[in-house]
Amino acid sequence: SNTLRIAVLPGDGIGTEVTAATLAVLDPLAKRHGIGLAFEELRAGAFCYRDTGTAMSEETFASAAKADAILLGAMGWPEIRAADGTEIAPQLDLRFRLNLYAGVRPFRALPGVPVALADPRAREMDLVIVRESTEGLFHSRDRGTVTHDMAEETLRITRATTERLARFSFDLARRRAERRGRKGTVTLVDKANVFRAFAFMRAIFAETAPAYPDVAHATHYVDAMALDLVRKPWAFDVLPTENMFGDILSDLGAGLIGGMGFAPSADIGDTHAVFQPAHGTAPDIAGQGLANPTATILSAAMMLDWLAGRGAGQGFADAAAELDAAVDAAFAGGLRTPDIGGRDGTAAAARAVAEKIGAT
Amino acid sequence: SNTLRIAVLPGDGIGTEVTAATLAVLDPLAKRHGIGLAFEELRAGAFCYRDTGTAMSEETFASAAKADAILLGAMGWPEIRAADGTEIAPQLDLRFRLNLYAGVRPFRALPGVPVALADPRAREMDLVIVRESTEGLFHSRDRGTVTHDMAEETLRITRATTERLARFSFDLARRRAERRGRKGTVTLVDKANVFRAFAFMRAIFAETAPAYPDVAHATHYVDAMALDLVRKPWAFDVLPTENMFGDILSDLGAGLIGGMGFAPSADIGDTHAVFQPAHGTAPDIAGQGLANPTATILSAAMMLDWLAGRGAGQGFADAAAELDAAVDAAFAGGLRTPDIGGRDGTAAAARAVAEKIGAT
Ligand SMILES: CC(C)[C@H](C(=O)O)[C@@H](O)C(=O)O
Ligand SMILES: CC(C)[C@H](C(=O)O)[C@@H](O)C(=O)O
Repeated sequence: SNTLRIAVLPGDGIGTEVTAATLAVLDPLAKRHGIGLAFEELRAGAFCYRDTGTAMSEETFASAAKADAILLGAMGWPEIRAADGTEIAPQLDLRFRLNLYAGVRPFRALPGVPVALADPRAREMDLVIVRESTEGLFHSRDRGTVTHDMAEETLRITRATTERLARFSFDLARRRAERRGRKGTVTLVDKANVFRAFAFMRAIFAETAPAYPDVAHATHYVDAMALDLVRKPWAFDVLPTENMFGDILSDLGAGLIGGMGFAPSADIGDTHAVFQPAHGTAPDIAGQGLANPTATILSAAMMLDWLAGRGAGQGFADAAAELDAAVDAAFAGGLRTPDIGGRDGTAAAARAVAEKIGAT
Repeated sequence: SNTLRIAVLPGDGIGTEVTAATLAVLDPLAKRHGIGLAFEELRAGAFCYRDTGTAMSEETFASAAKADAILLGAMGWPEIRAADGTEIAPQLDLRFRLNLYAGVRPFRALPGVPVALADPRAREMDLVIVRESTEGLFHSRDRGTVTHDMAEETLRITRATTERLARFSFDLARRRAERRGRKGTVTLVDKANVFRAFAFMRAIFAETAPAYPDVAHATHYVDAMALDLVRKPWAFDVLPTENMFGDILSDLGAGLIGGMGFAPSADIGDTHAVFQPAHGTAPDIAGQGLANPTATILSAAMMLDWLAGRGAGQGFADAAAELDAAVDAAFAGGLRTPDIGGRDGTAAAARAVAEKIGAT
């Protein structure tokens, strides 16, 4: 089969470490499945901004946009900020400019990794937050108005994006239902009891639902969802929501399954997609080889699966499934990263996963 | 001492049940401490709206505003909505019109009540979210613009309110430090890495902090706080935040300590205050005598404490402390409400608490 081009943006801090670890796993995986992956490393992020004056050059953006998929580490650094005091986050620009409206963030417990909740059913948690990633409150990024006495931001919900988010969510629930062998449920998370914009969002989801009679459809207020994610996370399936709500709820979800080191993500649009761990650059442990690469490795599995869905071939789907299984097998086999109290650093974790490839 | 007037707004659904239970506890408590409380019951809420066309009449509002404090049950009902699709929530009007900027929501584990997290340190959780309750995203309530293609809401942060919120939070941390015998910490929860309005909020907190050298000061992004509330809630003290963020995080906090039935709250301004459980009207169990009145009883204790702070006298402070202790003693003594799998309904729970008054 053809070779696909993957733009790799390691970014800052532990971003570079988890990216290197992931590439070390992808290489043997690609060989084994006979799939062609060519990695093109590109520079962007906070240190790039400090050194060059721009967080991501137009040339870099163009190269990334031309690639078949984008794999990203993490970007940002507390001490390096824009003039308005906000952090350097070119990953947000990618979401906006490439129209990656669906921020897919799956959460499930890995074998042997302790979960936060006492209730044993928490290990059965298997849900996906679909964070709308191009509008909502984040529409206001770089647009907030500030005077001496007051500051304002604008939350925007559009019909066009909400319709696509709804269809994406129902399609995802349908595919998951096939894999899991039970009916899927899309639960829109909003605050329609107080805000017209969310009543608007709710109405658009209600218009989309009838086209998916095989998928159940529900709604939930965002505050009640924060409660229920702590009380019964095993009760949910696909949870589309507004950008800021999704940002908050997905960190909560990560907390439930052992932390950000276990939370992969994909920012998906109609033509492009970026795959990256949900975590940040972790200045406190950067450069020490301690970062858990699992979230990035699982994000790479999502990338292979997405490429398969775009016609890259069965080898990609098989490789994605095997990579997921290898991560499970590594943790089931005793892999313990420092974030869960273990001693296996970034390279050791990557080795443990690579060893399970072809062995599961 | 003088008799203080308490406006009582039971509201809808279980609001009326938990309010009645709380008054049944306050009566013997007031007698024992020789404090004069006169309760004036007022009608407001979703059913009031359905029956009279207004959720809270101007007359009711004026009576409530003239009282020394306001005790509120819960308001709203899913099937009764305003023309724009939002719910009837006159408690929000009270927050706005009486300028109750500090939404105080304390979270601690009660003896014998199961907590959500597996880590045993979760029982030591003792934190307070201070939800700004008059602006932020909620500034936009009733002001959102909706066209066929798009909806927008405005998040507003003002200097005046943020300064008051900051001082309130530092004062609260100072008082808590005295009671707890250790240094307090105010941690502002924001999203200053992305939004100018939150960088603005952060700057105002930084300006306020030096006036409180005895209180530590930190900042935390809202997504990271959602994670850390699940990972190490025992590490936090006073958490001021924007209105919408506070709404989400306080339901999360309630989930950690056994659910909304255990989460009291106070909406406090410079001249008025409303005390109410953080939970809603619970249509699914309303009218069955199953609601847990603990959150409302603890809210009433916050009310007595607030009145003491306003000069009502030591009897009020003593009564507040005894009411808190009675709730603890009741649960330590085996009280188990239906929301935690027990059989003690609303009236039984109130009786169990009342029995501990004077007995602890
Ligand atoms: C780093 C930050 C700008 C980013 C966001 O808020 O989207 C992060 O929290 C995320 O979830 O990807
Ligand atoms: C009922 C609802 C309008 C209210 C709010 O969002 O403030 C509630 O969730 C709360 O926390 O008091």
